[in-house]
Amino acid sequence: MASNSLGTIFKITTWGESHGKAIGVVIDGCPAGLSITDDEINQALSLRAPGRNPYTSPRTETDKAEILSGIFEGKTTGAPICILIPNKDADSSKYEPIKDLLRPGHANYTYLEKYGIFDYRGGGRSSARETACRVAAGAIAMKLLSHYSIHLTAYIKQIGNVSANINAIKNEDLRILTYQSPLYCPDKIATDEMALIIEKAKTEGDSLGGIIEFIVSSMPVGLGDPVYEKLEANLAKAMMSLPATKGFEIGSGFHSITMKGSEHNDPFIVEEGKVTTSSNYAGGTLGGISNGMPLVGRIAFKPTSSIMQPQKTVSTSRENSTFKLPEGSRHDPCVAIRAVPIVEAMVALVLADAILLNRCSKI
Amino acid sequence: MASNSLGTIFKITTWGESHGKAIGVVIDGCPAGLSITDDEINQALSLRAPGRNPYTSPRTETDKAEILSGIFEGKTTGAPICILIPNKDADSSKYEPIKDLLRPGHANYTYLEKYGIFDYRGGGRSSARETACRVAAGAIAMKLLSHYSIHLTAYIKQIGNVSANINAIKNEDLRILTYQSPLYCPDKIATDEMALIIEKAKTEGDSLGGIIEFIVSSMPVGLGDPVYEKLEANLAKAMMSLPATKGFEIGSGFHSITMKGSEHNDPFIVEEGKVTTSSNYAGGTLGGISNGMPLVGRIAFKPTSSIMQPQKTVSTSRENSTFKLPEGSRHDPCVAIRAVPIVEAMVALVLADAILLNRCSKI
Amino acid sequence: MASNSLGTIFKITTWGESHGKAIGVVIDGCPAGLSITDDEINQALSLRAPGRNPYTSPRTETDKAEILSGIFEGKTTGAPICILIPNKDADSSKYEPIKDLLRPGHANYTYLEKYGIFDYRGGGRSSARETACRVAAGAIAMKLLSHYSIHLTAYIKQIGNVSANINAIKNEDLRILTYQSPLYCPDKIATDEMALIIEKAKTEGDSLGGIIEFIVSSMPVGLGDPVYEKLEANLAKAMMSLPATKGFEIGSGFHSITMKGSEHNDPFIVEEGKVTTSSNYAGGTLGGISNGMPLVGRIAFKPTSSIMQPQKTVSTSRENSTFKLPEGSRHDPCVAIRAVPIVEAMVALVLADAILLNRCSKI
Amino acid sequence: MASNSLGTIFKITTWGESHGKAIGVVIDGCPAGLSITDDEINQALSLRAPGRNPYTSPRTETDKAEILSGIFEGKTTGAPICILIPNKDADSSKYEPIKDLLRPGHANYTYLEKYGIFDYRGGGRSSARETACRVAAGAIAMKLLSHYSIHLTAYIKQIGNVSANINAIKNEDLRILTYQSPLYCPDKIATDEMALIIEKAKTEGDSLGGIIEFIVSSMPVGLGDPVYEKLEANLAKAMMSLPATKGFEIGSGFHSITMKGSEHNDPFIVEEGKVTTSSNYAGGTLGGISNGMPLVGRIAFKPTSSIMQPQKTVSTSRENSTFKLPEGSRHDPCVAIRAVPIVEAMVALVLADAILLNRCSKI
Repeated sequence: MASNSLGTIFKITTWGESHGKAIGVVIDGCPAGLSITDDEINQALSLRAPGRNPYTSPRTETDKAEILSGIFEGKTTGAPICILIPNKDADSSKYEPIKDLLRPGHANYTYLEKYGIFDYRGGGRSSARETACRVAAGAIAMKLLSHYSIHLTAYIKQIGNVSANINAIKNEDLRILTYQSPLYCPDKIATDEMALIIEKAKTEGDSLGGIIEFIVSSMPVGLGDPVYEKLEANLAKAMMSLPATKGFEIGSGFHSITMKGSEHNDPFIVEEGKVTTSSNYAGGTLGGISNGMPLVGRIAFKPTSSIMQPQKTVSTSRENSTFKLPEGSRHDPCVAIRAVPIVEAMVALVLADAILLNRCSKI
Repeated sequence: MASNSLGTIFKITTWGESHGKAIGVVIDGCPAGLSITDDEINQALSLRAPGRNPYTSPRTETDKAEILSGIFEGKTTGAPICILIPNKDADSSKYEPIKDLLRPGHANYTYLEKYGIFDYRGGGRSSARETACRVAAGAIAMKLLSHYSIHLTAYIKQIGNVSANINAIKNEDLRILTYQSPLYCPDKIATDEMALIIEKAKTEGDSLGGIIEFIVSSMPVGLGDPVYEKLEANLAKAMMSLPATKGFEIGSGFHSITMKGSEHNDPFIVEEGKVTTSSNYAGGTLGGISNGMPLVGRIAFKPTSSIMQPQKTVSTSRENSTFKLPEGSRHDPCVAIRAVPIVEAMVALVLADAILLNRCSKI
Repeated sequence: MASNSLGTIFKITTWGESHGKAIGVVIDGCPAGLSITDDEINQALSLRAPGRNPYTSPRTETDKAEILSGIFEGKTTGAPICILIPNKDADSSKYEPIKDLLRPGHANYTYLEKYGIFDYRGGGRSSARETACRVAAGAIAMKLLSHYSIHLTAYIKQIGNVSANINAIKNEDLRILTYQSPLYCPDKIATDEMALIIEKAKTEGDSLGGIIEFIVSSMPVGLGDPVYEKLEANLAKAMMSLPATKGFEIGSGFHSITMKGSEHNDPFIVEEGKVTTSSNYAGGTLGGISNGMPLVGRIAFKPTSSIMQPQKTVSTSRENSTFKLPEGSRHDPCVAIRAVPIVEAMVALVLADAILLNRCSKI
Repeated sequence: MASNSLGTIFKITTWGESHGKAIGVVIDGCPAGLSITDDEINQALSLRAPGRNPYTSPRTETDKAEILSGIFEGKTTGAPICILIPNKDADSSKYEPIKDLLRPGHANYTYLEKYGIFDYRGGGRSSARETACRVAAGAIAMKLLSHYSIHLTAYIKQIGNVSANINAIKNEDLRILTYQSPLYCPDKIATDEMALIIEKAKTEGDSLGGIIEFIVSSMPVGLGDPVYEKLEANLAKAMMSLPATKGFEIGSGFHSITMKGSEHNDPFIVEEGKVTTSSNYAGGTLGGISNGMPLVGRIAFKPTSSIMQPQKTVSTSRENSTFKLPEGSRHDPCVAIRAVPIVEAMVALVLADAILLNRCSKI
């Protein structure tokens, strides 16, 4: 089943295993005339790269993406854009000893059952390595968004029990402060507290979960298509297609269930001649179509499945066993952190597609 | 943009406005040889029908669906199945007085901006009336699931601050108890408490939100396709395409972020020769593919947007105004209740498609 | 497999069997703001209706289509448009005696093998009755084309060995003359000759094949998407999805193989400041994209499979037998004739989709 | 618009320009467990390579494809397979002098109009170079077909006015004899005549067209999906998406129009207990579904557009000019010849998809 593509008009197809020769992505349907350089792709990738702080995987993953097609004289031509990212640090020999064990919280069991075969080198296709391709494609989508003056930010909203407070932060500073923080959290006080609990988890060979929030300001009205291509439906799918995600919410989200309709309905007002709402519990859409208010949502990431503690499991031959990651294995104690630019990429991809589709709504 | 379809192989397309002549659904891709009757469709629709309790909309919506194609001598033929549901109670004159007002929490503003035109009769296409088509199609999907001995239940997990407790309920009783409850909540004590707060909200002309949980037992291993057609990704999209939904989570969901990896990773064990896990924080999937454990997820429904209280708003001509539903308007004080069979339908549709797609995973 | 849809943005889904309760079509993705009435649909259907001349099936198929959704106050709303066409003349009892015989040139054998079940009433889903839905949808597509001042005509180019000559006919008269002819052939002399050979075939209980040519003038430049959605590729698929078609060609078609490149390459010239070509062997596209010249193609229709002569065949139980249509069966001696408005519809559907898709080619 | 993909389950996406860094293809949806090597891909590519005879382009296009993903320990894993083909002979400087001229019979005009930009280096995306990717993907599809014991052959049926006669050739020898011929024509006498007229055309700086026929024996019954995914509809689309194609026909094709129904209907007979037909005018399908008879079709290729003679044209600034290919340009005097393995690849891709889709036709 062809299941490695996302999008209708602005469509990406990713390929490659974490420890194969390379990974890559084809972006098909990007309109002609957009300026793009290899550097822009690599800048986006560097935000996802490990080693930016002591709490992410130290794998020296100095990705160097190369655009192989679709750009001519610096601009998109309407032809499919292929971006290749070689796998430089792909020693898979350390996976040999554990290749016959089911990994708790991982996909090797389900892949084996589904396909009868599993590329066990570092998670194969189920590895978060695949998300580098999403970030590369997202950089192009983001370029298209900036053409429409749409700006988006994602940041760490919560790790474990520690929450960020962004009330005091101006919208235009949010992204800068986020990427200044080693934990991609714009709230400095929260960052410090998060660092402590991550350090502790790491010492214990354990891991933590987290929440990422995304905010898109300067949204146009009209993006999203009823009834099955609602904007929040496509955002939800995009996010839940990421490894380690357990939940998605838009606007008030799960909190809405304890509110009353009279509180939750955002009243329409006119501001500077423009229709807007005085609150934004909806999170930027009504009936699945953007209403011009900021698009706001949150994604829950489970605690990293790869932990250094020994875990009970069974082998592929159904015998009781213990799973223990090889010494020197490198894993993020909290996957949510590096997922911040990935979430941004997913939002950008969904919006780029919605913008193009919306060109067909009226005669 | 063609956005009224869901699914790849088992694909539905819905059409019709709440106050037009009829609504309907085409199910294309249902395998040949499945027994289906009009009655089975209508039984499913009756669970969604209003008037079953004092807390749902009293609109006398005695839907009578008719299968127009795709069935021959009681069985599916592989041809597309069209189901027609006439709109019997479709007096739209009462919407005339409010047709020039933006409705808080509703979609008429965004539809108007996107399409330049809005079928204001009762919400037009954005109305929850459309979900009757999903339930009709879901009845056929559920028939396919039962062919694979897959059983599913959805129920009211929470309304406002009142939660159901199903720990004492046996899995095989869950669905029966659910549909015996006027609030589709299998926990009798919670049902009574929920009834009280709904009654109060109704009296105040207000509304409440709620959470629905779904549980699918006897899941086969292998459903769902990496990386963009993960089972939870398609479930999330299906649920977030429903009116009034604000969030989706699978397994541990948002709760996972306060857990540690060592707690959250479900250990593999062998039980009666079969691989299983001793806990189910994953909620039934690993790497987006079903692992044979129960598939468990939750959906947040916002408090009903249609409330009887007057609300501040603006008109289509950008003037300040007050929105007030006409006397005699009939709306559920809590939309989550009637959404229970709809959530079941959406789960069934996603699984039916995943089952067929999975036939192509191996040579 | 969901295979009853055509198109990406402007997408149709048809359903219904020839002798079921009704047939119908859902048009999803038609832009909002287009004026449409039931009458326009029915006028288009009347061109396809039998009984207009002695050479088409006399079945009194007075189709009366009804638009059930998607139109509000006379205009499309962006919502899916469902058109229902009841089956009035659907006595299927006469098919009982032949239901266990494989019909030469028909699909009952392949349907039976593929699905294990066959709706034998009049051909079920494989009947040309399905094409009424294409014509109904095509009427809406044609309305969209006329919004862009694109005009199209199809006509009978050849029946048996008799060819039409349209050299003397002005482009603007072509469609009128076509539909004035009982054989949809604008050449009056050819019409008379065709009538003779059709009459003869009919008397012999036999049938004839034919070629339809379509011509689209005032084509915009830029329709069609490389490399797999070339305009001629989608036209070919649309035409070869029609019952009884055996071939498709564009521009010079099969005749091109006896030409030289120096003859076949259409030289570019500038006419009234506009780029055009001095010949049109290409048939209106270059590299799969329309070049502004008339779009010209031809479709071969085999002789009608339903003939009144007895034919050798076998039964579903693999025994030798003779197939003989019941007395009073009504079939066109040449299916190509009534296919003229169907071909027009298919061209219109492909172009409507291409026009919308082309809105996304540039930033 | 995402238009560089073909197929539903077995889906290919191609990318790359003729004179860019590389071209490539992603095959998504290939079932797990199929043995594939780089060598098999390269063997298929070598059949398409130029330089095999004096009548194809002498460009030294020693393609060396590399599989970058989706294969583990020699077998497909169900993950997307990316095949990369570097462009070795990609000096585009010679295109500089003609970059501002519209090329007769080529796509630079339509690309420029559609996208506002054109990668003029050797035809960019519109170049036949793209078809190497189809051949690479087709090699995998053909491997899947051989798993089902389906064998296919394409060959040169006609060049200019010279036709091949294969009546005396046994089915099992057809492919071998085809690839032994420098012109991919199994009829030796015809090969010699064809060689003469090609030589003449080449000397004159001119070009010739041709017809390719494909024959698939050992077809299973049941492939193809009514009504818009008929097997011949998808074959037609696949073929008409190839550069230089002007027509497609199946079975009797355009010849059918001069036959009578009583001749054309293939009578069903039982042979060795199996249902078959005593003739095969249908060409292997009935109602769009394969009937077990050989699948037979033909494709018309226009004379090569690149000729060495000077041609009248206009410039991008709308001035009269003359187009002349640079000395030393290398082009096939008849593109049909090298298209033989490409046609084989397209048939294989369509059938692989149809085989997988057919797994979903029954419960």
